[in-house]
Amino acid sequence: MNKGKTHIYTGNGKGKTTAALGLAMRAVGHGMSVIMIQFMKKNEMYGEYAVMSKIAQIEQFGTNEFVNLDNPTDIDISEAESGLKFAETIIMAGTYDVIILDEILVAVSFGLIPEDSVIELMKLCRGNAELILTGRGASDVIIDEADLVTEMCEIKHYYSKGIIAREGVEY
Amino acid sequence: MNKGKTHIYTGNGKGKTTAALGLAMRAVGHGMSVIMIQFMKKNEMYGEYAVMSKIAQIEQFGTNEFVNLDNPTDIDISEAESGLKFAETIIMAGTYDVIILDEILVAVSFGLIPEDSVIELMKLCRGNAELILTGRGASDVIIDEADLVTEMCEIKHYYSKGIIAREGVEY
Repeated sequence: MNKGKTHIYTGNGKGKTTAALGLAMRAVGHGMSVIMIQFMKKNEMYGEYAVMSKIAQIEQFGTNEFVNLDNPTDIDISEAESGLKFAETIIMAGTYDVIILDEILVAVSFGLIPEDSVIELMKLCRGNAELILTGRGASDVIIDEADLVTEMCEIKHYYSKGIIAREGVEY
Repeated sequence: MNKGKTHIYTGNGKGKTTAALGLAMRAVGHGMSVIMIQFMKKNEMYGEYAVMSKIAQIEQFGTNEFVNLDNPTDIDISEAESGLKFAETIIMAGTYDVIILDEILVAVSFGLIPEDSVIELMKLCRGNAELILTGRGASDVIIDEADLVTEMCEIKHYYSKGIIAREGVEY
């Protein structure tokens, strides 16, 4: 297999983490080894956690609270840094075929992780494993470094009709 | 749970079927029952088939050949019609929480299935199960009938650099 492409799922629409999950599922179906590293999340109640932890590996770095964009806490920053360090270790180890860095692009846009560090990770991974980065707000520099970029564009969403996120579907 | 929303994943970008797979995975993780009905596909070599058939149900209607847009065969049409009939039966039975009609929107845009029949299915399912329709080329009428529409927009793709689809990642 032709390894080492970098994918980005960004945009304000639904389906970024979901697409990464599907990609993981498909890769596992082909006998590949997959790890999902989640940023800004720490909650095993996410439906993805239950299934991913059965068919592949999943690690979460964050807290169970939403990050306050205007005032991220020291814990938010140190968790994101730990995630970044862990991702680097995983990439260096070279034991996974597919590495998913879920919501890492949001962590960058919130200022929890330097953009440069992500570019370095992308370069480090190139040619070794399939790397998938998700999250809204991908910067131009990161997009330039990627091989495949899909933007999920929200055309219509029932949240705007006052319906909140529902277990099993949105998380 | 607030059931019965209709989701559409359309657009020319990557991640439509993949997002549906991820949604299936998440729903199964929450103990929901899921079925994926695939149109214009008949190949158990798809990575999604291996995993979906383990965690949920998957049924394929189509042939192992690509459909010729200019000249679909009688088999293409009869397979698509069988898929539609099967979907209707599944919706009527009411035994699934999540029903995915994968690539059904392509089947409509290729003229294999009437648009009206899909609208009828959407109405039939409303309030009973989560319905997910995928495929490029969603028509305005179908979009109007849906609750949530995400368009996957291709920003950058390495296919254009001459790299072909790779097992475990694209299929």
